[in-house]
Amino acid sequence: MATIKLVDENTPHPKVQAVFADIRATKNIDRVPNIWRALATHPDHLELCWTRLKAIMRPGKLDMLTKEIIALAVSITNGCNYCINSHTAAAKKLGLDNEGLGEVLAVVGLYNSMNKLADGYQIEPDILPPVE
Amino acid sequence: MATIKLVDENTPHPKVQAVFADIRATKNIDRVPNIWRALATHPDHLELCWTRLKAIMRPGKLDMLTKEIIALAVSITNGCNYCINSHTAAAKKLGLDNEGLGEVLAVVGLYNSMNKLADGYQIEPDILPPVE
Amino acid sequence: MATIKLVDENTPHPKVQAVFADIRATKNIDRVPNIWRALATHPDHLELCWTRLKAIMRPGKLDMLTKEIIALAVSITNGCNYCINSHTAAAKKLGLDNEGLGEVLAVVGLYNSMNKLADGYQIEPDILPPVE
Amino acid sequence: MATIKLVDENTPHPKVQAVFADIRATKNIDRVPNIWRALATHPDHLELCWTRLKAIMRPGKLDMLTKEIIALAVSITNGCNYCINSHTAAAKKLGLDNEGLGEVLAVVGLYNSMNKLADGYQIEPDILPPVE
Amino acid sequence: MATIKLVDENTPHPKVQAVFADIRATKNIDRVPNIWRALATHPDHLELCWTRLKAIMRPGKLDMLTKEIIALAVSITNGCNYCINSHTAAAKKLGLDNEGLGEVLAVVGLYNSMNKLADGYQIEPDILPPVE
Amino acid sequence: MATIKLVDENTPHPKVQAVFADIRATKNIDRVPNIWRALATHPDHLELCWTRLKAIMRPGKLDMLTKEIIALAVSITNGCNYCINSHTAAAKKLGLDNEGLGEVLAVVGLYNSMNKLADGYQIEPDILPPVE
Repeated sequence: MATIKLVDENTPHPKVQAVFADIRATKNIDRVPNIWRALATHPDHLELCWTRLKAIMRPGKLDMLTKEIIALAVSITNGCNYCINSHTAAAKKLGLDNEGLGEVLAVVGLYNSMNKLADGYQIEPDILPPVE
Repeated sequence: MATIKLVDENTPHPKVQAVFADIRATKNIDRVPNIWRALATHPDHLELCWTRLKAIMRPGKLDMLTKEIIALAVSITNGCNYCINSHTAAAKKLGLDNEGLGEVLAVVGLYNSMNKLADGYQIEPDILPPVE
Repeated sequence: MATIKLVDENTPHPKVQAVFADIRATKNIDRVPNIWRALATHPDHLELCWTRLKAIMRPGKLDMLTKEIIALAVSITNGCNYCINSHTAAAKKLGLDNEGLGEVLAVVGLYNSMNKLADGYQIEPDILPPVE
Repeated sequence: MATIKLVDENTPHPKVQAVFADIRATKNIDRVPNIWRALATHPDHLELCWTRLKAIMRPGKLDMLTKEIIALAVSITNGCNYCINSHTAAAKKLGLDNEGLGEVLAVVGLYNSMNKLADGYQIEPDILPPVE
Repeated sequence: MATIKLVDENTPHPKVQAVFADIRATKNIDRVPNIWRALATHPDHLELCWTRLKAIMRPGKLDMLTKEIIALAVSITNGCNYCINSHTAAAKKLGLDNEGLGEVLAVVGLYNSMNKLADGYQIEPDILPPVE
Repeated sequence: MATIKLVDENTPHPKVQAVFADIRATKNIDRVPNIWRALATHPDHLELCWTRLKAIMRPGKLDMLTKEIIALAVSITNGCNYCINSHTAAAKKLGLDNEGLGEVLAVVGLYNSMNKLADGYQIEPDILPPVE
C-alpha cells in the first residue's frame, strides 16, 4: 500500500489539475497513473517531474521504443516493480512483441552478469582509441 | 589493479587459445580485451561466458546498436566503470554520436530517479490491460 | 511470506525476552515489529543488531528526525519495502509532514539521477580544497 | 577518464554559457564542476538538470545541510565516487564536522545492513497506523 | 503478476519440452518452477540460461551448499524476492538449518554495511601482497 | 583519496589504541588496514563496527572460508573496490585458489543475471513446501 494517500484524479488544485490534464492528453489515456497521483502530494515536485519526463521522452536521435527499452532495462536493473510493469506495457504498446522482450531481457541479464565479473576481478579499462 | 594475473594473449592453452581467436575474429580486433584475459584463468567459465555473449549479442528483433545501448544503460545503473568505458566505445563505433549519447544518459538518469520515486511512495501497479 | 517462522512475542527464551522488552520500552510500543521477531531465530545476532541500532539511533550531532530521514533515503535507494514503510511512519511520527516527505523524495530522486549521470560520463573528481 | 571531452568553461555556446554563469553565481565558485562540463555536451539536458537541481536544492521544509546529507547518503548507497567527494565537501562547508560525518556514515551503514536483513528474511510490513 | 503469460508445463514445443524434462530430472521435482516457464517464451534464451546454470551449479572446488549460499547472498544483496525464496528453500534442502541461515544473513548484513563505510570514506586499497 | 584524514596507527587515543591493538592481534597483521583508520575518526563507531565484525566473523555453523566467500560475493554485487580487494586476499589466504575463485565469480555472475530475469518478468514465487 502506498505510504501516502493518492491525490484524487479530479482534485481542484489548479497546478495539479493542469499537470493531470496534460498527462491524459500526452499519453492519450483516461486515468492518471498512480505514480503521478502520489507525486501530486507535492505539486511543485509533480510539475518538475512531469516537465522533465516530457522533455526527455520524445523522439530525438533515439526513437520512442528505444527510449522505453532503456527505461525498462534501468527499471529491471533497479528491481522497481511498478516501473517494470509500466514500461513493459509501454514497450509492448509501441510494438515490442514477446520475442523482442525476450531479447531485451537476455541483454539485461547478460550485462548484469558481465558487470559483476568485471568488478569481481577488478579489471582495468582497456586502452581504447581516444575520446573525441 | 586486477585481483588476478591476466592470462597472456598468446597462451598455449588450447581452449583459451580457441576462444581468444574467436574473440579477435568476431570483434575484428587485434588485442583481447582485459575482461576475457581475466576470465581465462578459469577456461570453462571463459568459454561459457563467450558462447553466451556471442549468442545474445547478434542482430535479432533488436539491432546491434540497441543492444549496446541496453548494455550501456545496465552498466551505468550498476556503476561498472570497465563496462561503461567499453560499451560507450562500442556504441560510438556503431554510430551513436555525442547527442545520441546525451539522450541515452538523459533517459537513464530520468528513470533512475523515477524508479526511486515509485519505490519511495510504495506505489501499487496501475490496472493495465491484460497480458497476452 | 517470511522465509522463517517469526518468533512468538512472548517467547520464554531469556536473551530474546530481554531484547524484546527493551525494544518495547525504548520505542514505547506494545508489539514487537516483525523484523526483530525474525532476527530472534538467531538470538546472538538479534542482540548484536539491537545493541548497535540503539547505540546509533539516538540524538548526537544529528537529531533523531535527520537520522530517520537518512534511514529512509537509504531504504528507498535500496528499494527495501519493509524499511520504507517503517521509516516513513517513524519520520512522520517525528513531525515530517507530506510536504517535507515530498522534499525528501525530491532530493532522493534528484541524486539517484545525478549519481548515474556522473558514472555514465565517468566524471573525474573536481580538485577540491584539501581534506582536514 | 571521462568518456567524452568536457566542454570548455569559456565556451561561446549561449545556452551553456548562461547555465555556467548561473552555476558560478549560485554556488559562489570560480570553476564549473566537471559534471556540468560533461552534461554541457547536450545543452538541453544540461539546462534541464541544472534547473531541476536549483529548484530542489534550496531551503524549504528541510534546510540545506539536511538536503546535502540526504544527497550524501544516496551517493554512498549507490557507490558513486564523484558524488561522494562532492557532497562530503558540500556538507562540510555547511558545517558538518568529522563527528557529524561519522554519525551520517553510521546511520548509512546501519540501514544498508538492516535493509538486507529485512529482505533476506522476506519480512512482511508491520500493521501500522493508517496513512493520512 | 508476471508481465508475460507463463508457458504451459506440457507445451508441445520440442526445445522447451526437452529443457523442461531436463529441469525436472536434474532437480528431481515434478513441477517446473515459474522462472523457467517465463523464460520459455523465448526458447533459445531458455536453453542458454539452463545450460549455463547446469554447468555452473554442480560440485567443483566448491560444494553445492556453498554455491547455494552464494546464490542466496547475491539475491539478498539485490533484493530479488523470487530468488531469495527459492535459494533459501534450496539451501535448507541441502542441510542449512535456521542457525546457519542466521549466520549467512549476519555476514550478508555485516558486509552490506562495511561496503558502504568503505565507499563512504572513499578508502584506498591497502598495500597487499602481490597477486599471483 | 579518502574524504577524511586517516588516523595515525600510533594514535594515543585510548579507545582507538585498544581497538587497533585488537585488530593487529586478531588478524595477526602489523599494519592496521585503512578502513579502520578511517573509522577511527569516530572512536565509538569504530568500536561498534569492530566488535560486531569480530562477533560475526568467527567459525560457527559456517567455517571462515565460507564466510569470506559470502563477504566477497556481497562486495562484488555492491561493486565495492576496497572490499573486493580485501576479501579476495583474505579468501586466498584461507586456501581459495584461482580455480575456486573462478567458481565463486561464476556463481555470482550467474545469479546477478538470474535475479534480473526473475525481476524482469515479475515472476511470482513458486508454491514451496511450508517453512518451519
